[in-house]
Parts: sequence; structure tokens; C-alpha cells
Amino acid sequence: MSDSFAAMWDAVHDIGRNPDTGGYNRFVWNDADQTMREWFAGEAANRGLDLYVDRNGNQWAWWGDPAAGDALVLGSHLDSVPEGGAYDGPLGVLSSYAALDSLRTKGFRPDRPIAVVNFVDEEGSRFGISCAGSRLLTGGLDPERARALRDRDGRTMAEVLRRAGREPGELGRDDELLGRIGCFVELHVEQGHDLVDRGHAVGLGSEIWPHGRFRFDFTGEANHAGTTRMEDRRDPMLTYAMTALAANKRARLTGGEARATFGRIEVEPGGTNAVPSRVQAWLDARASEQSMLRELVETVTRLATERAGRDDTSVTMVAESASPPVRFDRALASRLAGRLGGVPVIPTAAGHDAGVLSAAGIPTAMLFVRNPTGISHSPEEFAERDDCLAGVAALAACVEEFAGGAT
Amino acid sequence: MSDSFAAMWDAVHDIGRNPDTGGYNRFVWNDADQTMREWFAGEAANRGLDLYVDRNGNQWAWWGDPAAGDALVLGSHLDSVPEGGAYDGPLGVLSSYAALDSLRTKGFRPDRPIAVVNFVDEEGSRFGISCAGSRLLTGGLDPERARALRDRDGRTMAEVLRRAGREPGELGRDDELLGRIGCFVELHVEQGHDLVDRGHAVGLGSEIWPHGRFRFDFTGEANHAGTTRMEDRRDPMLTYAMTALAANKRARLTGGEARATFGRIEVEPGGTNAVPSRVQAWLDARASEQSMLRELVETVTRLATERAGRDDTSVTMVAESASPPVRFDRALASRLAGRLGGVPVIPTAAGHDAGVLSAAGIPTAMLFVRNPTGISHSPEEFAERDDCLAGVAALAACVEEFAGGAT
Repeated sequence: MSDSFAAMWDAVHDIGRNPDTGGYNRFVWNDADQTMREWFAGEAANRGLDLYVDRNGNQWAWWGDPAAGDALVLGSHLDSVPEGGAYDGPLGVLSSYAALDSLRTKGFRPDRPIAVVNFVDEEGSRFGISCAGSRLLTGGLDPERARALRDRDGRTMAEVLRRAGREPGELGRDDELLGRIGCFVELHVEQGHDLVDRGHAVGLGSEIWPHGRFRFDFTGEANHAGTTRMEDRRDPMLTYAMTALAANKRARLTGGEARATFGRIEVEPGGTNAVPSRVQAWLDARASEQSMLRELVETVTRLATERAGRDDTSVTMVAESASPPVRFDRALASRLAGRLGGVPVIPTAAGHDAGVLSAAGIPTAMLFVRNPTGISHSPEEFAERDDCLAGVAALAACVEEFAGGAT
Repeated sequence: MSDSFAAMWDAVHDIGRNPDTGGYNRFVWNDADQTMREWFAGEAANRGLDLYVDRNGNQWAWWGDPAAGDALVLGSHLDSVPEGGAYDGPLGVLSSYAALDSLRTKGFRPDRPIAVVNFVDEEGSRFGISCAGSRLLTGGLDPERARALRDRDGRTMAEVLRRAGREPGELGRDDELLGRIGCFVELHVEQGHDLVDRGHAVGLGSEIWPHGRFRFDFTGEANHAGTTRMEDRRDPMLTYAMTALAANKRARLTGGEARATFGRIEVEPGGTNAVPSRVQAWLDARASEQSMLRELVETVTRLATERAGRDDTSVTMVAESASPPVRFDRALASRLAGRLGGVPVIPTAAGHDAGVLSAAGIPTAMLFVRNPTGISHSPEEFAERDDCLAGVAALAACVEEFAGGAT
């Protein structure tokens, strides 16, 4: 088990890695992402698993006949945020393969089909919609809207798909494939330090907070930064700056029940000596309750609008994506907790493909692996090798529990 | 005169113009800039003027023998800010050619050499240093530093020069050429509305405010926007946002004697769902007095540093360029005022190549043409055609005054 995991880890280590920073840049359909997909296909072939690429580009490695139905699906994703870490995504896919390896070494034979899945475009780094592959599969993202999304170079998803040899017309909900999934278990590096605080290598997920991405467009008037009197300006950067501070403050005031972040901004014209004509900025907001999330976003939008009145600018807000709260399947979690014995059960504020599948009615569970720093979406993201192997063992136990089988 | 001006205006109208916005994107050595340079060379050839490209890439169209010395130089620049207007730069170059045309039609023969100049890279849109061509010529910008400057794609000025067929090793102060310049007159669209308020089509420049570009690097720690508790963050976006608001407020508090603008910002990693690790932002600051500018920048830096302490981030500030105040040559201005009769004399907070040459000891004057909106560095930038022709007439009068000559 440890050899198989280590070999896979080494194989993907340098793919899409910035040697200067150690950060990963695996964005959907870029070179690094394509190389990761080739790696996934190669690992399926090495194990005699049948590779299936669905109409939305998600990759499935099947052990057993998919048509038999009620499959146990394991997996996660292989893409990254800009300058992301090594674990978010790949840890779940590698661990799934490694879990199957350890069981097969023992001669395990499953009594239902098993698949390892690589969900495409989980991070949404390129087109701004997270979990795009699983949302398209489940019908949570309209294919027409998806095809028209543009990356930072102005290319639509349809163009990018065509360049990658895919047929954009095929995007959309896939009932036949969904009907074959009995349950889904996603293993993921923890993105906080609950497991550190509790002293456990592995935990079970209870729920995902509701969350969304909200684009604020602040509009003013471009002008010369030197000659334009301060009182003659309509500077949207000021409206943005106040909004960013207000969002942070509002999230703090919830006492730990919400998060608000502005991590992406685009300025036009973007010259040092020009008052901006437009600032676009994306608010990532999350909360433990749907009503609290709604109130947070409404309050930030109201404060932005009030400030725009004072700056003689204007502001509009568009919800680019919104994910309702997810409670993972209780029966599944309870069987898994019994099997694993005494693992902590923790919530997360991060979105996952598991959340999308759960929202679509598929029984779903998540396993988390301890992250000593709690940092993720950064090269600092980390998990000790022993903790990773404990995650692989937990996944293997999960397969034994749910895919019956006799040794 | 009006025909010659109109024909030139039409010839350059579409070069580097974004058809969707009407904004111009002529950045040093990009395709649009190169096309403008070819246009400049063609206009010199049409008039039988000798084209000379100096070691820093500035273009000179000579009427008469440069070696005779004490030349009268007219001109401006042909590049733009991102999404800039049609007038800032080109108006001065076109008007210089048109002024010579009107004089030659009358049979005017100068008694000293005259040159029309196109100073390269005035806006600094690509490498961040304004007036790079005139600063290199006068020794105000170190060639070693210039060669190492990088554009947004990470290319150094040295690489970009080589791609453009230039020899980066040639950059640097050019004493022989400087020694040939007797005086320099730059015509420019006004970037405020002093001339509107005073009801004049043309004005004379008195001084340029001291100004500079100051890069602020705010450093924190990249992390997951959903799972990282608000109190565990080290988010440099907050430090930046407060700094942008503070800079604006400090400039307002001077009661019209200073300007402060953040118009350019870069965020790493720049993902919607990542707390930024780094925010770089450029402050453009100007004031009527050097001491006030210094105090403004020091205060903003101090406030940024204090806020960084509260955000658990850090901040460093680098002065990327600093231009001392410039008072244009009094003798030149006084002769010109006498010749033109009753023109208003106005200061400007915008930097110009004329300011760089003046700081290097060359007698220099500026003419401004009325701008009905006062807006510049934007597609809204405008001057009425009659006002442009009044500018051409003023330049022609200037040549008659200073280049003696007999009709």
C-alpha cells in the first residue's frame, strides 16, 4: 500500500508545479491538467480497470461492470487553484487507487462495481465556476451557460473544449451514469485544523456549509491620475476598497459562523497613472446557515451601494454560483463510523464534488486527512505520509464495508 | 494647415484602437506602437525631413543640419496608457508637422535647425516608468535598470528591444544629441479644465508638479477562502484596501494641492477561493510642492504599516520613479506669451517629456490645447478641431519667433 501510494505521489509531483514557488497550476484543460488526465488513464490501464470519459469530461476507472448498477464510487479531482498545494484533489484520487491496490493484494473481490473518478474542473480556476464537472453531470450547471463562460484570455469553455478535442455539444446531465452510482466516498486533505486539535489522523465529514461566489462590478470614470482633481473623480477603486473591508468585518462579527474573502480583482484600464473606469471583484462567502449567508451577502451589497452613492460610482452584484448546505448521508456515515471506530465527525466550509452529488440525491460520505498547518490552497498545504496512509486504510475499510466481497 | 492636420488625424485614427471601447492601446514596441513609428517615419519622408532614430529609440525628423546645433525641437509622444484617448501624445506630434506645413506653404525658411521628435515610451504603460525615452536620453534613468524592467508577461525591456530589432546595449545618455538641442516646445491636450474655465483655446505651461510612482508590496499568507477562520488569516487585501482609502483621504485633506491614485493592482494567487498571499499596488502621487508630496507618501506608508501590524501582514514601499518639480524656462515663456498675446499661463500635475528635458537643463516650454471635458487617459479625452488648429497656429508662431527665418 505505502509503495503504491509513494510511486503515484512521485509520478505526479512535478506536473504543473512552479519550481520557483512550489505552487501548482493545474487548470482545467491546460497542459498540466491534460498531463494529470493522461496519468489517471495510465493508472487505470496498469490495474486493468476500464477507462470511461463521460460527456462532461469526468474520468472513471471501472472495476466490474458499470451496467450492473449500485456502484461504489471513490475519488476526487486533479486540478488546482492558482499556485495551489499538492494535496487538495490528488490526495483523494491517489488514495482511492492505493486502497484498491491494498485490497487486491489481499485477494479482495468486490460484490458490486467500483469506480475511481477524477471530476474535471473542481476548483473553477479557469472559468470561475467550482465543481463544474460534477455540476454538469448532475444538471446543477446549465450546459448553455457553461459553454459561454470565458477564461481570463477571453476564450469560451466551448472553444477550450474543442481545442482539447472534446465536443462541447455533449455537455449536460447524464441520467444513465448517475443511475449507476450507488454511493460516493470522497477523501480530501483537511482545510482547517479540527483534526489537529482533536489528535486524529482521519475524520468523517458531517456537512458542507452553504457558500457562493458573488461578482461585484464597480463602475466609475477613467481619468488622468495627476490632473484630475480629487473632487472631480468617480473612482470605483474606493468603492471596492470599502466593500472589501466591510465584507471582512461582517464575517468577523458572526463570531466564527461565516467567512468572506475578496481574492480576485480586475481593474480597467489598469494603468498606474489612470483613475480606473471599472473594478470587478469576486466575493467568496460562506456561513454555517443559509439565512446567515444570505444576510451577509445582502449586507455587503447594501454597504457597497451606499458607498457607491458617495463615490459617484455604481455597483451591481451577480451571484455566479450558489451552493446550498449539504448534510452527508447519515446511514452511510454511521456505518462508516462503526467500521473505522471512534473517528471524529467534522463540518467543512469548503465545497466539494461530494457536496454536489449529495445535493443531487446520491448517498455520499467524506473522509478528511489531518493537515498539520490547516493551510490549503497554497504550497504550504501538507499532510504527513503516515496520515495519508491512514487515509488509504480508511478508504480500504470503506470498500470492504460497502462492497461486501470475500477475501 | 487644416487639410494637413485632418489627413494625419485620419491616418492614425484606427491604429491600436479598440473598436469596442474607442480606447487606444499603443504600448512601447507593441504592434500599434510600431505602426505609429512607421507612420512618423513616413511623414518625415513625405516632407523631405531626415529621420534619425537615437540610441534610446526616440525618433527625430530633422529640417536642416543637426550638427549646426542650437536646434528648435517640437514634438511629443505617440504611445498611450491602456485604453487611452486619441489626443494625449499624438496631438503634439501631428500639430508639429502641421505647423511646419503651414510655414512652408508660406515659404518660410528657418535660420536654425528644427526637429520634430517622437519620444518613445512616454506613458510607461508597459514597463512602469514614464518618460522612459527622454529619461534615458538625459541620463535620468539608468540603462542597466531599464534593461531589467519587466512587462506584465515577464519580458525584460532588453528582450523586448531585441525582438524589435533594437540593441539594448545602446541605451543611455546621449551628450552629442543633447548638445544639439537649443530649446524644446511640447504641445499637449490639457488634462484638466483650466482653459475651459478661462475661455481660451490655447495656454502656456508654467510648471509641472513633483510626482512619482510608489509600489506597495503587501505580503500575507495564501489560504483557503472557505475553511480558514477569519481570525487565522493574514490577508494582505485588507491592508491594501485600507491603504487605498487612506491615500485618497490624505490627498483630499490638502484642499486641492495633491493627488493620490491606486489604479493598478496585482493579486497572487488571484483565485476566487483563495486568501491572497500577496497584493502589489501602485500609488501615483503628486503635489504642488515637493515637501507636501514627501509628507503625503510618508503618511500613506506609515498608515499602511500600522494596518499591516493589525492584519499580521507586512508591507514594503519602493519609489519606482520620482520627478522633482519643474518650472518651465521663464525667458522662453515670456517671449512666447508676447508673441501669442494674452494666453493664460497654467500649471499641470501631469508629467511630460518636456519636464524631463527641462530638469536636464534644456530651455523648455509647453503649450496646452483646451479639453472640453477635462478628461484624459480615457476614450472621453477630446479637443474641438478648431482648438487643435489654434494649437497648430500657436506652434507655427513659436517657430517664427524662435527660428527667425525670412518669408
